[in-house]
Amino acid sequence: MTGAAPKITLHLVASLDGIIAKKDNSVSWFETADTYEKGTTVTEEDATAFLRKIDCYVMGSHTYEHALELSKNYGWAYGDTPTIVLSQRNLPVERNSIQVFSGDPGALVNELLKQNYTNVWVVGGAALVKNFLKNKFADEIRLSIVPIILGDGLRLFDETLPEQSLRLKDLTAYKNGMVEMVYEIKK
Amino acid sequence: MTGAAPKITLHLVASLDGIIAKKDNSVSWFETADTYEKGTTVTEEDATAFLRKIDCYVMGSHTYEHALELSKNYGWAYGDTPTIVLSQRNLPVERNSIQVFSGDPGALVNELLKQNYTNVWVVGGAALVKNFLKNKFADEIRLSIVPIILGDGLRLFDETLPEQSLRLKDLTAYKNGMVEMVYEIKK
Repeated sequence: MTGAAPKITLHLVASLDGIIAKKDNSVSWFETADTYEKGTTVTEEDATAFLRKIDCYVMGSHTYEHALELSKNYGWAYGDTPTIVLSQRNLPVERNSIQVFSGDPGALVNELLKQNYTNVWVVGGAALVKNFLKNKFADEIRLSIVPIILGDGLRLFDETLPEQSLRLKDLTAYKNGMVEMVYEIKK
Repeated sequence: MTGAAPKITLHLVASLDGIIAKKDNSVSWFETADTYEKGTTVTEEDATAFLRKIDCYVMGSHTYEHALELSKNYGWAYGDTPTIVLSQRNLPVERNSIQVFSGDPGALVNELLKQNYTNVWVVGGAALVKNFLKNKFADEIRLSIVPIILGDGLRLFDETLPEQSLRLKDLTAYKNGMVEMVYEIKK
């Protein structure tokens, strides 16, 4: 607990048509053959330094199960950073950094996140992100767009969201054709 | 007819959640209060020079009727540039630059657009854009994202689109918080 105002970021990767997961859960579409000459390159050191500032990850149970599945081949993606899984289910927990929280999202934000962390990243899935958007629990959206149209799959946004203004904070294009937009959510 | 390979661009303005029209057809959400300091400013001269390169606009009948409605207060948005409305209906035509084409989109592209124009902009609506995407009639997508989440309205993309790779060609942020992405549609 540092005393700094905690910031909650929704971190999302989607296709241009707003899809965050294919029906078969395959992730190969993240890697495209695109090359954008004017794009920024990120060194491994930059990426590590950036990720080190995140002091808590939050995810829903399906995203967690998917991350567990991927970890068998690629390792656990979130290192030793505290990771909170929002779920009423009895999920397997194999690392000390992982905690399953069975309360509602409001309790998670007010009783756990705001008390203990300063830079929280919510990494999905769609239901959790929508809940955070509806209740204005998040401070910013960091959306990376992969240069592809998928057509069918799990959509990030739907008609249940209330209208809300955003403020563009940052925009970056990467060498692989990925576009990253950072928006502040006005409260 | 110039002999240059004709280029067909899908030009779209959407909210971050992919909505191109509100249910009440109001357009005030295009104008946000956002200011993005790092954004690019476009002079009226730049804009005019850019738009002058477009030698044909294409739109569906609802977009046309909406443009007619708006023209009562703001003037006709497409000047004297040839404008083709794809429709089987008997629509009012009040300007010489406007032509109603009652064939299918494939005939429009092959018999009319490719024969006569070099820089065609398809400006909507959603049904026409989806048809062009499905049939790969278009060469590029130019999508401007307004810094807002709308929630409910007419969505640009849906599950009927086939998966297709894109290539990022250009990315610009404007002073008003608008993000413009230009993608080549790979064929």
